[in-house]
Amino acid sequence: MAQKICPRDKDYGRWYTDIVQMAELADYSPVRGCMVIRPNGYSIWEKIQQELDKRLKATGHKNLYFPLFVPESFLKKEAEHVEGFAPECAVVTHAGGKQLEEPLVIRPTSETVIWHMYKQWIHSWRDLPLLYNQWANVVRWEMRTRLFLRTTEFLWQEGHTAHANEEEARKEALLVHQLYKKLIEEVMAIPVVCGKKTQQEKFPGAVDTYTLEGLMQEGKALQMGTSHYLGQTFSKAFEVTFQNKEGELEFPYATSWGVTTRLIGALIMTHSDDQGLIIPPKLAETPLVIVPIWRGEEEKKAIKEFVTNLPFDGIAFHFDDREEEKPGYKFNEWELKGIPLRLEVGPRDLAKGEVVLARRDTGEKCATSIATLRQTVEKMLDDIQTNLFRRAQERVKKNSHFVDTYTAFQEKLEEGGFLYAHWCGNGSCEQKISEETKASIRVLPFDAHEEAGACIYCKEPSSRRAVFARAY
Amino acid sequence: MAQKICPRDKDYGRWYTDIVQMAELADYSPVRGCMVIRPNGYSIWEKIQQELDKRLKATGHKNLYFPLFVPESFLKKEAEHVEGFAPECAVVTHAGGKQLEEPLVIRPTSETVIWHMYKQWIHSWRDLPLLYNQWANVVRWEMRTRLFLRTTEFLWQEGHTAHANEEEARKEALLVHQLYKKLIEEVMAIPVVCGKKTQQEKFPGAVDTYTLEGLMQEGKALQMGTSHYLGQTFSKAFEVTFQNKEGELEFPYATSWGVTTRLIGALIMTHSDDQGLIIPPKLAETPLVIVPIWRGEEEKKAIKEFVTNLPFDGIAFHFDDREEEKPGYKFNEWELKGIPLRLEVGPRDLAKGEVVLARRDTGEKCATSIATLRQTVEKMLDDIQTNLFRRAQERVKKNSHFVDTYTAFQEKLEEGGFLYAHWCGNGSCEQKISEETKASIRVLPFDAHEEAGACIYCKEPSSRRAVFARAY
Repeated sequence: MAQKICPRDKDYGRWYTDIVQMAELADYSPVRGCMVIRPNGYSIWEKIQQELDKRLKATGHKNLYFPLFVPESFLKKEAEHVEGFAPECAVVTHAGGKQLEEPLVIRPTSETVIWHMYKQWIHSWRDLPLLYNQWANVVRWEMRTRLFLRTTEFLWQEGHTAHANEEEARKEALLVHQLYKKLIEEVMAIPVVCGKKTQQEKFPGAVDTYTLEGLMQEGKALQMGTSHYLGQTFSKAFEVTFQNKEGELEFPYATSWGVTTRLIGALIMTHSDDQGLIIPPKLAETPLVIVPIWRGEEEKKAIKEFVTNLPFDGIAFHFDDREEEKPGYKFNEWELKGIPLRLEVGPRDLAKGEVVLARRDTGEKCATSIATLRQTVEKMLDDIQTNLFRRAQERVKKNSHFVDTYTAFQEKLEEGGFLYAHWCGNGSCEQKISEETKASIRVLPFDAHEEAGACIYCKEPSSRRAVFARAY
Repeated sequence: MAQKICPRDKDYGRWYTDIVQMAELADYSPVRGCMVIRPNGYSIWEKIQQELDKRLKATGHKNLYFPLFVPESFLKKEAEHVEGFAPECAVVTHAGGKQLEEPLVIRPTSETVIWHMYKQWIHSWRDLPLLYNQWANVVRWEMRTRLFLRTTEFLWQEGHTAHANEEEARKEALLVHQLYKKLIEEVMAIPVVCGKKTQQEKFPGAVDTYTLEGLMQEGKALQMGTSHYLGQTFSKAFEVTFQNKEGELEFPYATSWGVTTRLIGALIMTHSDDQGLIIPPKLAETPLVIVPIWRGEEEKKAIKEFVTNLPFDGIAFHFDDREEEKPGYKFNEWELKGIPLRLEVGPRDLAKGEVVLARRDTGEKCATSIATLRQTVEKMLDDIQTNLFRRAQERVKKNSHFVDTYTAFQEKLEEGGFLYAHWCGNGSCEQKISEETKASIRVLPFDAHEEAGACIYCKEPSSRRAVFARAY
């Protein structure tokens, strides 16, 4: 607590890691690129899991678990569809004291094992759809890592579904994309631009990739999650067929989709400030912390009794009754750790029938009547949730620019943000822009309206704007 | 469904794997010794997780996540305390396309990394206790594997706590042992004998190991979970110290404890029969399945309306309205899959104001008035839960034998079961008995009463009986 967080305007990268470490969200592990997710960070992940899991289950998805190990030959089979994983793989060559006949790869993703199993499980249209998801750890050997944003091992959920026809599979990919949007916007209070990836930016194995792009405080984009319509690529590669209602053999249609612990990085870079983390109330394990201001046994007794009798059923709170720390120290600690609302209570407050509520998002403090405390706390938590989302939305709006020439594009890019620009749809323009500016097309937004324009690079006609940005 | 489960008395091992595979609990993966946990099996694991997790959190424990990889040198450091892991390890030697400077072991357990981190996190008595738990996958390269009971990769929770004094740490080890007992007996309906392991059978790094031993239908014991009081072994090995209230440096006292997906194997081998799995109501994702018996659109409409209006708020049920399967097929399927209670409803039942309830545990079917259906269903689910536990308890009782001579011991052992026998406390007798009979001391029960006797092996005096059995 003696240390101070490095301010954002001094060193944004340092500010980020200071928050991760000082709010005790995560720590570096003894293995390069791996992280330890500490209880404060893990409770955020658990909340993300709960909120997404209940939405997935309500829409008919089931959880299961596939093994950590993938035979090396499986990845080679998939090589044409999923290029790029091989150099990222961690490989087990020895086990049980012996060299293995075939090396085992630690899953970078589970498609190959899953489709191998789907071949045993799918025979008839009666077996479809398979709407399966798993919560698991995966490993990708990244060269440059950053806590939560890019780590060698990370936690995620990966959904892999199989359907009897294209229409149903396409619907599924969009349904899950919508569930992600609800999770990220309504629970995490992070606004996203939704739409499709370009052919160059999509997952190589996919026909179409849907994405949700957030804009972080630094002005860089962060991909929050993706949902893929995979067509019959995997069912053909793994020779999975089913007998349709007409008795003919067909290849099922597939989707896959995932979000990762990276979301915690997005959370930090969307809402936090120079005092520390800010957790939206709906994502906080305990949205309220109570800090007593007391001296002597009588005051302690009165305040403890007050806390015990609070009508807060259903509102999770933490009563910080540590004797060894002073109130000011506690205030700072809970601000750093991002608890959205603080209740301060001392003997003078009680005498007046009041307590003090302090909002983490605005820093405002106000005296509040005990008589209506539950309603006030509930309303304030709602307000904080709404305000965090609105504030983030305004920031994204302020940092979204329409540019019509390549010069304007390059100039604006230096300020950061989302650049809405016309693009001809040609992969070579996309690639040249990316090479020359390090900005990529993050998303072709669903809600882009039709508008006559010219590609900022080649000046060929374009009817819709794409969203460009530099990204993490 | 055309296949039949192999009866228990014909081939117990085959019966077990038939249930695992035909009830779609798990399947063999393409990697030897690893399993795929299918949705029916995973939902049982999720229920175990929920039930244990809420008990752990209610007693102050927090979840977090440590990395999959352990530097090889860490395990060597721990070698004297945790012998026996090395030959079971899977080792990553290559990653990111290169050979690693130091090989990485896939965690067989996380003590070493955890205590490495505790060294950074523990400085003062204010930092204690650390009551941390993680839900994770671990890998132990087993030569002989069996679905759920012994697999190369399995899922578990591992708790690792640090305390300021011995008393508190010993209390913690016993507290978690009690939480396990509640989970296993009250939710899973599996009776266990609770107590301590002998010095020979305990975890090598522990001072004391507490265990919960179940007795499976086959007459073999299964260790359901363990909780260890570790003393200062790990804090000393990893040089973790804290400043106590008196300002002196001390080594913290530790515990560790875990249960694994093996519990699902115990569930199968405790309650199931030749028709398939039986899931206790408290552990079932859906304790009730509704099977309609209908022909024609009018009957379908009436029954669907009946189901929609059932006053079953809070009772999870599955309405099997598949058109393509006949009722008899559905009955068999849900019996195989272990759903505790089935409700059958047809137009004639409705006309009489009745439905039929069929219990999975006893096979009993009875007509029940619709007017009091909710109460009847709730009562029947309670009865099934109680009956499964009582039935298992009776079986354990019937197969628990007091033996007073080595000859009687060897004879009774062939029937299987728990053998309560006097033992002098000497490791060499214990080892000889184990070598000669393949039976080990499973547990020194907490509730063994004092009784003068003689060790069955050396005839030296003994004051309490130990529980011997052959085990999985």
